[in-house]
Amino acid sequence: MENNKMSTSNVSLQIPKRLLMGPGPTEVDPRVYRALSLPVIGHMDPCFLQVLDQVQEQLRQVFRTRNAVTFPIAGTGSAGMEAAIINFLEPGDEAAVIVGGVFAARMCEIVERCGGKLIRIEHPLAEAADPDQVRSALSGKSPKLLAVVHSETSTGVCQPLEPLRQVAQEAGALLVVDTVSSLGGVPVEVDGWGIDVSYSGTQKCLGCPPGLAPITVGERATELLRKRRRPVQSWYLDLSMVEKYWGKERRYHHTAPVNMMYALHEALRLLLEEGLEAGWARHRQSHEALVRGLEALGLKMFVPDPAVRAWTVNTVCVPDGVDDARVRGRLLEQFNIEIGGGLAELKGRLWRIGLMGQTANASCVLMLLNALESVLVEIGYRAQRGAAVAAAQEVLASPAG
Amino acid sequence: MENNKMSTSNVSLQIPKRLLMGPGPTEVDPRVYRALSLPVIGHMDPCFLQVLDQVQEQLRQVFRTRNAVTFPIAGTGSAGMEAAIINFLEPGDEAAVIVGGVFAARMCEIVERCGGKLIRIEHPLAEAADPDQVRSALSGKSPKLLAVVHSETSTGVCQPLEPLRQVAQEAGALLVVDTVSSLGGVPVEVDGWGIDVSYSGTQKCLGCPPGLAPITVGERATELLRKRRRPVQSWYLDLSMVEKYWGKERRYHHTAPVNMMYALHEALRLLLEEGLEAGWARHRQSHEALVRGLEALGLKMFVPDPAVRAWTVNTVCVPDGVDDARVRGRLLEQFNIEIGGGLAELKGRLWRIGLMGQTANASCVLMLLNALESVLVEIGYRAQRGAAVAAAQEVLASPAG
Repeated sequence: MENNKMSTSNVSLQIPKRLLMGPGPTEVDPRVYRALSLPVIGHMDPCFLQVLDQVQEQLRQVFRTRNAVTFPIAGTGSAGMEAAIINFLEPGDEAAVIVGGVFAARMCEIVERCGGKLIRIEHPLAEAADPDQVRSALSGKSPKLLAVVHSETSTGVCQPLEPLRQVAQEAGALLVVDTVSSLGGVPVEVDGWGIDVSYSGTQKCLGCPPGLAPITVGERATELLRKRRRPVQSWYLDLSMVEKYWGKERRYHHTAPVNMMYALHEALRLLLEEGLEAGWARHRQSHEALVRGLEALGLKMFVPDPAVRAWTVNTVCVPDGVDDARVRGRLLEQFNIEIGGGLAELKGRLWRIGLMGQTANASCVLMLLNALESVLVEIGYRAQRGAAVAAAQEVLASPAG
Repeated sequence: MENNKMSTSNVSLQIPKRLLMGPGPTEVDPRVYRALSLPVIGHMDPCFLQVLDQVQEQLRQVFRTRNAVTFPIAGTGSAGMEAAIINFLEPGDEAAVIVGGVFAARMCEIVERCGGKLIRIEHPLAEAADPDQVRSALSGKSPKLLAVVHSETSTGVCQPLEPLRQVAQEAGALLVVDTVSSLGGVPVEVDGWGIDVSYSGTQKCLGCPPGLAPITVGERATELLRKRRRPVQSWYLDLSMVEKYWGKERRYHHTAPVNMMYALHEALRLLLEEGLEAGWARHRQSHEALVRGLEALGLKMFVPDPAVRAWTVNTVCVPDGVDDARVRGRLLEQFNIEIGGGLAELKGRLWRIGLMGQTANASCVLMLLNALESVLVEIGYRAQRGAAVAAAQEVLASPAG
């Protein structure tokens, strides 16, 4: 063993304070940290079971649903994605996935791993999918589910969901929606839009540390769970078992991540105190101010159509001749601000600026614009000093909503 | 929606302070709570990557291994169990499981769900498995792995592992060991005993909240990962991908549960500060004192042979005519002490008293004996007042180790 290295672990953690403006995790309110460190109690303790009930009620409000099966999965967002797919597919079942980025591609991989027959419907990375194209791709097929990412965290495209409900219905498919980087920041109407299954992550607009993946499952989908011919491949993510712990049976399945549940409870309380609509308006205004500021800096948004830009994950093209990693490195070192780079084929080509939860506000927008301008000028990029902040402030001056 | 219920979630959490002496979760040191609520930073932040390196080094020390692939899985213990099985099996592969309780039975279910051909080797619940019987059950078979639970949390039996190494080797099988309720409290020697794969949970002897499952994978097992014909059914628990995040590649897989990682780091620091051997001695002495006290109360241990009793999960028979749930309820209400009841066929038949991590000490043992005696006397059970504590104190008077 490398003894010289081991000694380092005997030093207590020195964690810097960052401003988290990447694609997640995002900032966490001090109230949430306090809840996180409340004393552990047993996962079958009557007091803890009350916490579970409350978290379920809170999540129903945030997802805008009456779905009984609504709770957080004990894993990060990708565990939610896996649960939302594998529970509703049996080997040989067709499943359609609308693909315009890394997270939708991950859905495809999950479909194939669990033995599903994949119908992959690709669309350009910087655009939303066209519902008519999806419809024609499904003609003659009988997919069990149609899966789509609402806000594609790798591209910043926000897919309009309402038209897809009709398409899914015509195909007789469940509509499964990834709301990882949209829930809490962008309108999501699970019941209103006829979404059958949706999952999210705690570390984006919900303002909680990473570690849980809220999921909601409608009646048609729950019915499918009950009618399965063979058990789900995963014991840990088997919703028909997990729901018996969250439901009236209170049957032990696995030990819940107790403290993360406290934190989520408090984060959702904060969110509901502000009100969903007020939160969405704040996210929208912050996004518009940021875009205006970035454009004043001479930068180009990656998604050309403003109507399908996510308000939460803002993607901007790295200008020609500018070293992506160097800029992000300087932002982190000099300003303690984290923003994200591009993934997969977009590596080096875009920056991802998160305005999610606590960072969707005027001061974060202005701080980021100031810092980015400063770093860009430092490396020789030509920008008019102060123009970005001035442009953003114009948007921020009008009331949100 | 039930509006009257929903309003309750708008009240901040009121969490009672329990003394956690059940089968887990267990008590958490204030230092660990402080680490848990350190500020979130990004999962690709260079400072966080250092934390990951340190956690890996700490875990190698605790598992007593040099295995490169050693890190926590982002889920609770059962996610670790699932990862430890599904990554090493392909459909049709034989897998043997030694079964003497609920957690071993769970392993069987996981083997079958991923398409493995199960060889189920049963032994009586209150005894350890006989290596010769295991050997004969495997004759003529070619299991890819032999899975066994070290400390069966449902029965309190601690299975001697060293003899099984030989059996696994003869069968050409990987030895996969569940150390969920043993790691940190009972000697575990991954390299010394030739264990190929082992996983644990953070919420037992490691003294951390629930939410992570440390796993370690030896070279032979890692090789199997690389040679798989088809990908693991689970994307989330695919070790060949997860290891690329923890290893030198630093390739993003899923967002790590950042704060839980801080907490584990601090919990492991505490554990290594005390030293593994000193910790084991403390667990052993606490166990022996508890057993002596329980016997002085006239109670009978569930596991007759003291040599195969786990020091961590102490199982005691519920006396005839005593209402299990009432006793546990009174302990919780009157003394704020949680102990566990029996699972499955042992429901109502035994109590499970955890002496794990922070609770493996004299004062917890004495507090529990006092409280239990008091509740038993209250419900009409005849016990000589003070005898239990006196008996336990005799054991505690001699130095541990």
